[in-house]
Amino acid sequence: MTMKSIPLLLSLLALIASPALASDPSPLQDFCITDQSGQGVPLNAVFANNGKVCKDPKLAQANDFFFSGLDKPGNTTNALGSKVTPVNVAQLAGLSTLGISMVRIDYAPGGQNPPHTHPRATEILTVLEGSLYVGFVTSNPDNRLISKTLQKGDVFVFPQGLIHFQQNVGYKNAVAIAALSSENPGVITISNTVFGSKPAISTDVLAKAFQVDKMVVNQIQSQF
Amino acid sequence: MTMKSIPLLLSLLALIASPALASDPSPLQDFCITDQSGQGVPLNAVFANNGKVCKDPKLAQANDFFFSGLDKPGNTTNALGSKVTPVNVAQLAGLSTLGISMVRIDYAPGGQNPPHTHPRATEILTVLEGSLYVGFVTSNPDNRLISKTLQKGDVFVFPQGLIHFQQNVGYKNAVAIAALSSENPGVITISNTVFGSKPAISTDVLAKAFQVDKMVVNQIQSQF
Amino acid sequence: MTMKSIPLLLSLLALIASPALASDPSPLQDFCITDQSGQGVPLNAVFANNGKVCKDPKLAQANDFFFSGLDKPGNTTNALGSKVTPVNVAQLAGLSTLGISMVRIDYAPGGQNPPHTHPRATEILTVLEGSLYVGFVTSNPDNRLISKTLQKGDVFVFPQGLIHFQQNVGYKNAVAIAALSSENPGVITISNTVFGSKPAISTDVLAKAFQVDKMVVNQIQSQF
Amino acid sequence: MTMKSIPLLLSLLALIASPALASDPSPLQDFCITDQSGQGVPLNAVFANNGKVCKDPKLAQANDFFFSGLDKPGNTTNALGSKVTPVNVAQLAGLSTLGISMVRIDYAPGGQNPPHTHPRATEILTVLEGSLYVGFVTSNPDNRLISKTLQKGDVFVFPQGLIHFQQNVGYKNAVAIAALSSENPGVITISNTVFGSKPAISTDVLAKAFQVDKMVVNQIQSQF
Amino acid sequence: MTMKSIPLLLSLLALIASPALASDPSPLQDFCITDQSGQGVPLNAVFANNGKVCKDPKLAQANDFFFSGLDKPGNTTNALGSKVTPVNVAQLAGLSTLGISMVRIDYAPGGQNPPHTHPRATEILTVLEGSLYVGFVTSNPDNRLISKTLQKGDVFVFPQGLIHFQQNVGYKNAVAIAALSSENPGVITISNTVFGSKPAISTDVLAKAFQVDKMVVNQIQSQF
Amino acid sequence: MTMKSIPLLLSLLALIASPALASDPSPLQDFCITDQSGQGVPLNAVFANNGKVCKDPKLAQANDFFFSGLDKPGNTTNALGSKVTPVNVAQLAGLSTLGISMVRIDYAPGGQNPPHTHPRATEILTVLEGSLYVGFVTSNPDNRLISKTLQKGDVFVFPQGLIHFQQNVGYKNAVAIAALSSENPGVITISNTVFGSKPAISTDVLAKAFQVDKMVVNQIQSQF
Repeated sequence: MTMKSIPLLLSLLALIASPALASDPSPLQDFCITDQSGQGVPLNAVFANNGKVCKDPKLAQANDFFFSGLDKPGNTTNALGSKVTPVNVAQLAGLSTLGISMVRIDYAPGGQNPPHTHPRATEILTVLEGSLYVGFVTSNPDNRLISKTLQKGDVFVFPQGLIHFQQNVGYKNAVAIAALSSENPGVITISNTVFGSKPAISTDVLAKAFQVDKMVVNQIQSQF
Repeated sequence: MTMKSIPLLLSLLALIASPALASDPSPLQDFCITDQSGQGVPLNAVFANNGKVCKDPKLAQANDFFFSGLDKPGNTTNALGSKVTPVNVAQLAGLSTLGISMVRIDYAPGGQNPPHTHPRATEILTVLEGSLYVGFVTSNPDNRLISKTLQKGDVFVFPQGLIHFQQNVGYKNAVAIAALSSENPGVITISNTVFGSKPAISTDVLAKAFQVDKMVVNQIQSQF
Repeated sequence: MTMKSIPLLLSLLALIASPALASDPSPLQDFCITDQSGQGVPLNAVFANNGKVCKDPKLAQANDFFFSGLDKPGNTTNALGSKVTPVNVAQLAGLSTLGISMVRIDYAPGGQNPPHTHPRATEILTVLEGSLYVGFVTSNPDNRLISKTLQKGDVFVFPQGLIHFQQNVGYKNAVAIAALSSENPGVITISNTVFGSKPAISTDVLAKAFQVDKMVVNQIQSQF
Repeated sequence: MTMKSIPLLLSLLALIASPALASDPSPLQDFCITDQSGQGVPLNAVFANNGKVCKDPKLAQANDFFFSGLDKPGNTTNALGSKVTPVNVAQLAGLSTLGISMVRIDYAPGGQNPPHTHPRATEILTVLEGSLYVGFVTSNPDNRLISKTLQKGDVFVFPQGLIHFQQNVGYKNAVAIAALSSENPGVITISNTVFGSKPAISTDVLAKAFQVDKMVVNQIQSQF
Repeated sequence: MTMKSIPLLLSLLALIASPALASDPSPLQDFCITDQSGQGVPLNAVFANNGKVCKDPKLAQANDFFFSGLDKPGNTTNALGSKVTPVNVAQLAGLSTLGISMVRIDYAPGGQNPPHTHPRATEILTVLEGSLYVGFVTSNPDNRLISKTLQKGDVFVFPQGLIHFQQNVGYKNAVAIAALSSENPGVITISNTVFGSKPAISTDVLAKAFQVDKMVVNQIQSQF
Repeated sequence: MTMKSIPLLLSLLALIASPALASDPSPLQDFCITDQSGQGVPLNAVFANNGKVCKDPKLAQANDFFFSGLDKPGNTTNALGSKVTPVNVAQLAGLSTLGISMVRIDYAPGGQNPPHTHPRATEILTVLEGSLYVGFVTSNPDNRLISKTLQKGDVFVFPQGLIHFQQNVGYKNAVAIAALSSENPGVITISNTVFGSKPAISTDVLAKAFQVDKMVVNQIQSQF
């Protein structure tokens, strides 16, 4: 490589050096499409959801704002009997800095989207097919369960950071579309996170927290 | 002062009673349900979408977070051949301070959701049925149209404040569900706002802005 | 209307009197002291943490920005062996709109502050006395436990919305001071919220979520 | 209760009636005009810049968004030889929740707008007439003075919260128009605040802070 | 290029790699000056208004916060008879992250700043010379025109995202200074954007949206 | 360097190119650890507090969220008799984007933390040992001093951007822990900034601002 090729290299670098971390509330440009071309740089592996890189807005194309396949049923053949298909900034680069995302959720009969939180978003959900028993629990000290059984066309809100769940209580598959108030809302499934973290939270902590025998904790942990 | 004068007094008080203008990004409580009981006070008339009043969170009920009917087709028998059914803080009080809302849009064949902006929100849309030609235009100076024809299951993003539209380009009804990154995103339909404001923007201004004869302006204005 | 009916009227008015839901990031005045004088109006009962009322800034006094007693050990004689003493907007009215709060946490030997989240805040903690094993778990899909044993003078950070805990792993009492990035951060203790909500989340949902027998769920629920 | 006691009642109510503390970044409605009609309630006296009250948007008028007189020179016959004419939410009710305000500043020859900060805003200033020596100082530890002499048509930026000043260094009057990134930016004049607070900061504190004899502190304090 | 020269190259790269996308509301440093030195890298072409690069704050100079020429009349010899001279982050690098910008607008007699929106800012305007008829239209469903004729020294507010305009209704040139609540507010001129986008919005969509014959649409489009 | 080594170089660069400037209110990921490994690049020198670089979240370790030594008394052998030990994003990389930080302050008898502001944060302080006279002054025009003498266990709030101070008024050392509502709150010590800036603010400006003789200004300046 000669000194002459530095400008070329710098041009390539300029493509990866452009940051896009405006915060949710107020974008600073029309849009900022996460650059995934990478020019040979494994950007995703390195940047994950931190530090997206924008591409030149003049190169923006309709496909940058487009995702396809939300009409496809998710595969619910799993222990929970449900499947979440996300459309957030990881799937749809044009969402970067724009503060919103979408998901499709499929539920087999009896299937559930287990208790979880979104650390950075409120969720609004509408039922496309089937019957869902849904609920969320208010924060301490009240811990009130606010729940309802929803039918097709019903809409429900799960406020930011609160633990919530949905369960298919009908005899056939259920489908919901939900939107979240962040392009990267995050998901924390309670059971996986508490009993299935890597490495595990000490049995001692969990036994006391849930007021059960350590053997019960070990039993639950072994599922995850 | 008699009991009869209480309504009058309450009306006066409504003017000073106050607003809950939390901003989008970061709620300060689990939720804040707009109080619509009103205790005889015509709150809606007075506060409209400014200054919602929260009710005691201990009185919150599942119905405060619930809306029903998004499975019902909107009536598209109108000049535009489309109908938007909104689910924002005006319809669903529990959305207050939570920064998100939802809409269903129905389109007759050839029907359109005409060019408009949301002054306070980005929109993410998915097609449930039919084919939609959708697009948005970037801000000055480029004014690039970024457009695409969407099919069932496709998702598209319209960034905050940009002018965008959808048109049913199929032979049957089309349906979309969209979400917006504010509980009160606002809608500004360009044609109505520019040519149908009350009172009208002066013909002089519009004729020069659109570089047309005043007669053309008058003709367009007469439609709104 | 008699003077006797004023309290009733004021109660009605309390329902419409309004909230001060400024958001965390950017206050709009030097300060907004939550008015707790109430003038006979049971404001706290009605507004709780929603909709604080500001008092005339000219009447602000040093005591409005003051709290006393954070040097007093909390009573740790309870099942968890720990006690949190909060200093947020509920205890210190002057914090309203200013986006920060503080807590003291006492731990008996072996005591723990069990796994919990703050839906609206990051926490920074420093150990004043003793040894604490602390940790948090990252969101899906990794669910990595990031943990460390802290000694006196050590500082640790628990990012917004992530599940975290502390346990006294020393032979004597431990004490920590922590600060949170909201005047009303909220606390969601996982065990209480999932297994002790009122009313309970259905055994069916919990058994499948935690992959255990319903009897185990019932056993855990019976502790809360 | 008689009609005569209504003003008293309204005064009590003013204390509970509530605030409109939307934050700067993201309004939740087209606008929120501070209600100053008051219906006999001395709202301004009670709420000052905390807790504005919005009026029914349907009653909004052009005058709610209007202020007049920024072409009038301010009276600079005072110790500093300068005069600031503010146009913020206190003068222009329609600015509420919209995050911007404006000022005109007049300077006699040699006059100055003394070192001050805006705790909640950045300032951008343009010179209409005359020559101004302007500057701001960066925060610790560098405390660099960044200064320049401006002529007619020049523009300068004073970043949020930094100490800055302007001085007329020409032979005739100078005039500037500036804008601030908050509808209620606040002003903290350093000299008045440090040496002229009511009551005074203890001489002991100030003598050590400024490394001078207490007599010098007393001398300076006597000017304010 | 040898391995020895990598540190040098990395130093150059460090200059371009430093991101500055804090959002409007709350900067995270005293200031972040957009680096335009570029070290041979055509930063502007690549980054446009996305992803500005900050330079080392120790290298900040007064000129980084300075712009000159706002006293110069803009050239109004064009179809609209007006000229906007912007001072935003593209012209004044020091504005980055600080959430404010300024413009000068010149109007020939009869000239206009045609109906437009700022997708990310509120505008406050003051008239320096002449008479302006100004107005904005509220969002759906009311679409009320709120307008006024302004004289020298008058101030008016155009809330975020709403369509607004100004027209010189005097016999001589008019001049205004306006400020906007973002360092990159964006401008969407309605006529250009709707009828002059590249490529064009389909005639079909526009004819129905404006309820006119396609020939009229074609006629308007031909002007842009 | 050969073309083959470009991928390696790009990988190194990817590590520095990842930006982390989300704003305070709403992080966009679990966390963003400032990358200080630098791979031979003197990042701190170049980036200072602008433009932190995040590292791959999969490489996050407990130490990234950890700081040690807040139990160590600061050295108060200096003119002010106090020492601030900060724990912000410069010391604790994991705080980046999370909107909070902490400090320990030591005070010799009679020592003071002199009048200063934090341009981007509110402060909440608790006394661990000793007696502190603390206060802040409200903004113009009132400039009210709100002060109190605190004892061990007392908590006090200093609102964003207001000038405040603490002085040890006891006979032994005093210690406080304080938290601030930004990971990079900034500090502006009034005396240093006004009288000790580099270069100095002109004597002319300061003499008039503080209404004292230029000799007094020179005397004060000579201390800094």
